[in-house]
Amino acid sequence: MKTSALSVLGRRTGPPPISWLMQTALSRPKLISLAAGFTDSPTLPIDISRGVLNRILRSPKTGRPALQYGITTGETNLRRLTARHLQKLDAAGVTSQSHSWKQVMITGGSQQLLYMALEALCDEGDLVLVEDPTYFVFLSILQSRGIRARGVRLERDGPDLAHLETVLQRLKKSGELPRLKAFYLISYFQNPTGVTTRFEKKRGILKLLKQFERAAGHPIYLMEDAAYRELRFNGPDIPSALMVPGGAGRVIYTGTYSKPYAPGTRVGFGLLPEPLFTSVQRIKGNHDFGTANLLQQLLAGVLETGLYDRHVAKIERRYGRKARVMKQALTKHFPPNVEIWESGGGLYFWARLPRNISTGVKSKVFQAALKNNVLYVPGELCYADDPARRKPDHEMRISFGSASEENIREGIKRLGAVLRKFLL
Amino acid sequence: MKTSALSVLGRRTGPPPISWLMQTALSRPKLISLAAGFTDSPTLPIDISRGVLNRILRSPKTGRPALQYGITTGETNLRRLTARHLQKLDAAGVTSQSHSWKQVMITGGSQQLLYMALEALCDEGDLVLVEDPTYFVFLSILQSRGIRARGVRLERDGPDLAHLETVLQRLKKSGELPRLKAFYLISYFQNPTGVTTRFEKKRGILKLLKQFERAAGHPIYLMEDAAYRELRFNGPDIPSALMVPGGAGRVIYTGTYSKPYAPGTRVGFGLLPEPLFTSVQRIKGNHDFGTANLLQQLLAGVLETGLYDRHVAKIERRYGRKARVMKQALTKHFPPNVEIWESGGGLYFWARLPRNISTGVKSKVFQAALKNNVLYVPGELCYADDPARRKPDHEMRISFGSASEENIREGIKRLGAVLRKFLL
Repeated sequence: MKTSALSVLGRRTGPPPISWLMQTALSRPKLISLAAGFTDSPTLPIDISRGVLNRILRSPKTGRPALQYGITTGETNLRRLTARHLQKLDAAGVTSQSHSWKQVMITGGSQQLLYMALEALCDEGDLVLVEDPTYFVFLSILQSRGIRARGVRLERDGPDLAHLETVLQRLKKSGELPRLKAFYLISYFQNPTGVTTRFEKKRGILKLLKQFERAAGHPIYLMEDAAYRELRFNGPDIPSALMVPGGAGRVIYTGTYSKPYAPGTRVGFGLLPEPLFTSVQRIKGNHDFGTANLLQQLLAGVLETGLYDRHVAKIERRYGRKARVMKQALTKHFPPNVEIWESGGGLYFWARLPRNISTGVKSKVFQAALKNNVLYVPGELCYADDPARRKPDHEMRISFGSASEENIREGIKRLGAVLRKFLL
Repeated sequence: MKTSALSVLGRRTGPPPISWLMQTALSRPKLISLAAGFTDSPTLPIDISRGVLNRILRSPKTGRPALQYGITTGETNLRRLTARHLQKLDAAGVTSQSHSWKQVMITGGSQQLLYMALEALCDEGDLVLVEDPTYFVFLSILQSRGIRARGVRLERDGPDLAHLETVLQRLKKSGELPRLKAFYLISYFQNPTGVTTRFEKKRGILKLLKQFERAAGHPIYLMEDAAYRELRFNGPDIPSALMVPGGAGRVIYTGTYSKPYAPGTRVGFGLLPEPLFTSVQRIKGNHDFGTANLLQQLLAGVLETGLYDRHVAKIERRYGRKARVMKQALTKHFPPNVEIWESGGGLYFWARLPRNISTGVKSKVFQAALKNNVLYVPGELCYADDPARRKPDHEMRISFGSASEENIREGIKRLGAVLRKFLL
């Protein structure tokens, strides 16, 4: 008799690649973690949240609905506020068809939306294109669900369109195009590289995907993950792919209030075209029939009072300062043959070592860093299993999100010392 | 070209059977809904919640962690409190191996745990046993994921063990036993019938499942859904299946703070044996990497201050009163040839009409009730698609959860008038 009755999915779902890193960080108090994607703790909006929650819970009229069941797709008020918020970010005008509140769904972080969208779209063996590199938890979902990923080369201003076309041509030639369902793009201050995709490239991606739809036999969606969009401290905001003319029917836009407001509230959202919206709505009915109402009311409260915008402005300054501190430390301590991709937002810088120097968990660099009490995310964890190329393993994601300025300086100093030993 | 790129799951997932009922209720303000499984609004703990949230968010020391990311399996404190809570309910003693906090996972309602447990256990085509009738959202998950259900006859004190054995024998004979993964049992004040399963029957179920494991070739789990356990106003509490000697390794226990405390906080939990715990933990990492910390801290706060127990005592009295009001109204207004299953807890009574009278959505009874502005849940929605029997459609679930006492009286009066027309 087998000792386990697990399903294929149950057996296949691996441990999160980063869990070991997290545990290591927790078990070594002297360690400075530049690995975690946590947000800055001192600026978390405890006063704002207390105020708004007090207001909601002070009267039965607002308090009771907040503690009662709600609607699977989310509270109408928060969906409207979210649509308006996106219209504003995109300078889209309130009548924009592609920004209708009726296509907005409120979820448990944008993570839940990514999961459900993949459930709605992909069967085992289907294909999804991802940036090379990309968000490792997204790769975990793909792995768990038996969905195959193909990497599209990433340039400093977004995916390499010529390479995207090559990949699509290759899939067409091999007859695999009918399995291709979507391109997953983290369009703002990407995790892990910090890259922001130019609007022209979003247009180009949608155009290319459309060209190959006939051969695919069905729509190919652009999943635009905008989780870091509002953590922007440098440069202008860029319209989302919803603004590409004719693109709305093919764009799944996911965003979150977790990162700009508070991860502990875990409220995210997505804008989905039909028939995806309906399918994901039904799936959410089975997952949890709706995200916690109390949190939705909290977010609606901070949005409609303008407290949200003020808070976002505050943390943008904060992350801007931390990013500058990291940049200065990198200039001072890192060897000159490490290429740094700095970002105008988000939580991460990306460091590229010479190709012959490995940064993986078992590498000398990683082990020496650990010994020196500093932690980063090895770049290799962010690459999909793609038979078309070897996984690069000479990069690192370094985060300025949760570490204090002092720890950023000290962490980069420690990491620099390690790198100098191997690179100079 | 197909207009949709949806997956098999995406296409298969149906609308929730009850969504139409909900919409009907919302769109007709004069309608009295005895259909919804909502909880009693006036007793929702708005003051308690405000107090505890204020305390948490007053100081950075407790406020910041509540607004930051947490751990995928849930906050250690809440997991410990939950284990202790279950030990107390089960009178198990704090050293009970089957009640270890390390097997406790905190989830977005117990619904999310049910979903993930099925993901971890069942492939498409696998089999799950359910009570006949059972919780319709559980049936929706099965349908969505292509899992087949087989019904086990329900008696007033739990599943019919002789019938369970027959079903197992039949599966063994047809060679389908290797596809059987679990028996889903709503053991306390069952949805929809209000039935509570005797402890001896839990023991009997586990024994029978064990007997057939060798032929199945793997463990067969008992999923004990205890969502309504703490809404008890009559009779003693009954130990959970975790208390069956030797049963712990086969019991998935799911519970929730949503119903006894507040649905708007959507915090549930489960106790899972290995290797299920690890598998579900990884799956949750992909779903949302952890339920909102703020809500977990809120629940931990109300649990450790004793406010939770006091609140539960209060709503038990409240539901007890509502149930008595419903019972009186039923006695007064329902024809004598309707069999009423009353319950010592939960939110529901179950009414069984003569077999030749249909109660389904398209039936004369349902349409007349609707015309009379009263809504119930047709019993047929609660039966699995099981080729072994015709779906009974002569029953109704009537809820005293959210309606006021006045509306319970008036709703039952209206429903009684309809029934008298068809039954007398």
